[in-house]
Amino acid sequence: MTRLPSAIERLIHELTRLPGVGRRAAERIVTSLLEAPPDRAESLRDALGRLRVEVAFCSRCGAWAEGALCGVCSDPNRDAGTLLVVERPADLYSFEGSGAFRGRYHVLGGTLSPMRGVAASDLSVDRLLERVQEERVTEVILATSPTVEGDATAHYLAQALAPSGARVARIGMGLPLGASLGYADPGTLKLAIEGRRNF
Amino acid sequence: MTRLPSAIERLIHELTRLPGVGRRAAERIVTSLLEAPPDRAESLRDALGRLRVEVAFCSRCGAWAEGALCGVCSDPNRDAGTLLVVERPADLYSFEGSGAFRGRYHVLGGTLSPMRGVAASDLSVDRLLERVQEERVTEVILATSPTVEGDATAHYLAQALAPSGARVARIGMGLPLGASLGYADPGTLKLAIEGRRNF
Repeated sequence: MTRLPSAIERLIHELTRLPGVGRRAAERIVTSLLEAPPDRAESLRDALGRLRVEVAFCSRCGAWAEGALCGVCSDPNRDAGTLLVVERPADLYSFEGSGAFRGRYHVLGGTLSPMRGVAASDLSVDRLLERVQEERVTEVILATSPTVEGDATAHYLAQALAPSGARVARIGMGLPLGASLGYADPGTLKLAIEGRRNF
Repeated sequence: MTRLPSAIERLIHELTRLPGVGRRAAERIVTSLLEAPPDRAESLRDALGRLRVEVAFCSRCGAWAEGALCGVCSDPNRDAGTLLVVERPADLYSFEGSGAFRGRYHVLGGTLSPMRGVAASDLSVDRLLERVQEERVTEVILATSPTVEGDATAHYLAQALAPSGARVARIGMGLPLGASLGYADPGTLKLAIEGRRNF
């Protein structure tokens, strides 16, 4: 039995470590790269190489940034008084796409999860409390996912933020139960911003 | 509205050119690469770079090869008298996995398709006829897919091979191993009736 060339086996191995890419999908990708002009694989390599060189995390909010600050934090026209707390950097662009939010963001880095061993110290919670003081934030909108873990994280944050005096709201109107933020349409996200409720 | 960093936008663009990768899947891949240690993206880049350097097409059969000849063609223990004709290089490894074939392969490069403008001159047909003469092949097994185009290609090849004197066979078709009759589609059952063999 003849085996796949090791360079193909190795690329399939690397591809299947990516989320959502199984063995068959990886084989199809390798086949397409071998059949395409060589510059196809080269431009993909180039784009991969630039990713970690050009993209870092915003030193203020934790979102993706091309400099020290992300596009939102470096924009003087954004309202520093309102913070929208999201789980992941990608969530920020979902809200930006809705055009309904003019404040700043804070990226938590996930949700509290005793099951997966994620505690408050693993998330950007202390930094959030610091920012609320430093940036004189008057309203914090909690936009964690409408899931058990997202809700529990929101409740935890609401309690932690209570002494700060800032108004704390939970996003929620318009988002269906169990939905993933990544799949929500801009209109639904706009409703969710407008329909926020105070804790 | 703040946009995604251009390095992320560019990598998403490159990823969505791959088969089976949509915008959301590409965003998930980028997120996972940004959250993983930097060497993850580097090993993927390295594997991509090696692919086109280390893998070429076998000068005899057209399969993937690390040298001038693929693993099958360079194996002196394979029976040169029998050729298994497949559409794509990846098909070869499916048959190798079965351990049921000890001859050599020939990779066509696709199927005839008037709709997509693929003619016999776009496939490795002349080379197949040459090989049957040069390698004194006594049997050619046509393993194109059981689709309209695969069947038409097999019929075309059978006619083209007739003058060579080699025995020409179509791969067996019918119920796959372990299949349940209740779930088989009518087309497969028709093939199974037509492909019946006497005990």
